[in-house]
Amino acid sequence: MIDADLVKEAVRQRKARSESFLGYEYLRFSDDFKDIPRGTVLLQDTVIWGYPHIGRIFVLERGLKEQFRGPFWVEEKVDGYNVRVFRAGNEVIALSRGGYICPFTTDRIGDFIDLSFFEENPDLILCAEVAGPENPYIEESPPHVKEDIKVFVFDIMKKGSKEFLPQEEKLRIIERYSLPSVEVFGRFTHGDIPKLKDLLFRLNGEGREGVVFKGEEGRRAKYITSYANLSDIKITAKNMLQLPAEYYTNRLLRLVLFMEEEGIEKTGHLYEELGRALIDGLFEAIEQFKKEHRVSRTFRCRFHKKENAIALLELLRRTSRHIQVIERDLYMENGMWVLTFDKVFLNMTGLLGHLLGGGLVFD
Amino acid sequence: MIDADLVKEAVRQRKARSESFLGYEYLRFSDDFKDIPRGTVLLQDTVIWGYPHIGRIFVLERGLKEQFRGPFWVEEKVDGYNVRVFRAGNEVIALSRGGYICPFTTDRIGDFIDLSFFEENPDLILCAEVAGPENPYIEESPPHVKEDIKVFVFDIMKKGSKEFLPQEEKLRIIERYSLPSVEVFGRFTHGDIPKLKDLLFRLNGEGREGVVFKGEEGRRAKYITSYANLSDIKITAKNMLQLPAEYYTNRLLRLVLFMEEEGIEKTGHLYEELGRALIDGLFEAIEQFKKEHRVSRTFRCRFHKKENAIALLELLRRTSRHIQVIERDLYMENGMWVLTFDKVFLNMTGLLGHLLGGGLVFD
Repeated sequence: MIDADLVKEAVRQRKARSESFLGYEYLRFSDDFKDIPRGTVLLQDTVIWGYPHIGRIFVLERGLKEQFRGPFWVEEKVDGYNVRVFRAGNEVIALSRGGYICPFTTDRIGDFIDLSFFEENPDLILCAEVAGPENPYIEESPPHVKEDIKVFVFDIMKKGSKEFLPQEEKLRIIERYSLPSVEVFGRFTHGDIPKLKDLLFRLNGEGREGVVFKGEEGRRAKYITSYANLSDIKITAKNMLQLPAEYYTNRLLRLVLFMEEEGIEKTGHLYEELGRALIDGLFEAIEQFKKEHRVSRTFRCRFHKKENAIALLELLRRTSRHIQVIERDLYMENGMWVLTFDKVFLNMTGLLGHLLGGGLVFD
Repeated sequence: MIDADLVKEAVRQRKARSESFLGYEYLRFSDDFKDIPRGTVLLQDTVIWGYPHIGRIFVLERGLKEQFRGPFWVEEKVDGYNVRVFRAGNEVIALSRGGYICPFTTDRIGDFIDLSFFEENPDLILCAEVAGPENPYIEESPPHVKEDIKVFVFDIMKKGSKEFLPQEEKLRIIERYSLPSVEVFGRFTHGDIPKLKDLLFRLNGEGREGVVFKGEEGRRAKYITSYANLSDIKITAKNMLQLPAEYYTNRLLRLVLFMEEEGIEKTGHLYEELGRALIDGLFEAIEQFKKEHRVSRTFRCRFHKKENAIALLELLRRTSRHIQVIERDLYMENGMWVLTFDKVFLNMTGLLGHLLGGGLVFD
């Protein structure tokens, strides 16, 4: 448990807030507080620890040498959103990274994971990435998820503990229960750097996001392909005003260090691809504004229960800043509720209205 | 004059500060305060008003329609730094945009402007751009200034007044005293938009920064070529961490709107040029870091008086944030003092040291 005084102090400082959602009352840490990560939840006297931040290395060879002494596991990093799934009372629920109960993931998790797993393992928490074109949160999806969503388990925790199960134990559980998981590329050593570079070159070509390295004593690091960096830039360019400068400077630096490490002959095409990523996203915003007088993106996702679709809209409206969430449609199709909605990017809509109308900008 | 109570209030709020430099004692508005622009100076009971902000239009045709009812003058915008030059006692001094007495410009102004102008016109202030490869402030310089610096007058003010002299009067004075000035392209009307587009297309091809439009009643606006937008991005990429996100998002939007307005067939090459602008600046930073363990840029400028060179270094050290100013050399050559110095970009140096050393970044 977390010390009661610490919890009180966090609430006083507005780092932890009471939430009431989908019939649950719980406390959610909305920010990192001392050693308690953002997204940590107190629910029915149980602590579900937040999923920790994983640092990123920008250069492969030197980065691995610096971060890991011994061998390390290499797993795919899937481009989706992070959830923690566990049993609460008689139900299985999914928490988002920020500690909200996600009505969409909670609704759908049984389609991907046999829920009897949680009956046999009421103390375990599956940490998974949810990815695919029909998710309500992020606009990118991995090329190997062609429709709807998929779930990819990558870690297992115990309720009340910050630690992850050791890699071998996690893999045994995944196998035993046939849990859907991220691709595990195996255990590597520092002598395998050329093999790893080949692996990342292949993942890059396949449009995959990157890898997570997992070493002894919980040491971890991630590394992202240039494909994913460009894709992030392209997707977000449409809503460029929303993100902090570091979002772009970070990705640009990663891209340049990737070109440095792989050699310019192999990567010269990235010059034009970067220009296109930035320009095309903005073009798209301008074209849309001229037609619709707004800049927005349409999302679609499927539910079993209508009330979960409505709860999702409520959650998105409550948690989105500078974004207006507008329901388009909610209808039954092939036994499921299909929700479509728009996220209207208010900053970009406002700025383009001003600029295209001939307005002045002072800088 | 500015009301004494207003001055006191500005000082109390730290928007105005006492400066003591080059033998002058004066008050400098370090920020905009009510209707007093940043850079306004109180010196020897005279107010030298700050040069006002000029808004930028992002689209040419609609922007001009929106900003000007009648005809407007079009002048070149030169890529340099803004100064106000005037007589103070028996000397002629130059203030920077921010209201510092610039020891470099003050030292050199007599090489470009016949100082008898100020004897005959002790109440006039010349507003000018100083540009060229040997200036101590900015890394870009217009292609038509091949060496040292040049001075380009673009406005004339009177001491104690916020207003500019009318365009015709300004042009007469420039002609009468053979003052060096920006190129004046003439007086245009809204019917001349095609001519203006041709002009900007030509300026863009010549690597020039853009134009300032000057209409009735002091209305003004500026428009920047895509060349200058790309050049800004390329030059600053080496010190990318220093600038706010808006610096880049603004320039990207300008570039895309330029492509939109001019047509993609004519501007498709900008995709690759944008990618190169961003990537090459960062590459340059990485290459330099690997050789010298720091990211920096070398400046060189010439002075008549050695003490002005030393005063410039002092000013730069006092006013540069996250930049270390290191003197390289100060020697006499052809009767002038040549100062060379480095600006070390501390943020970029620190980040690259961390990243290339294999460090983690949490985001």
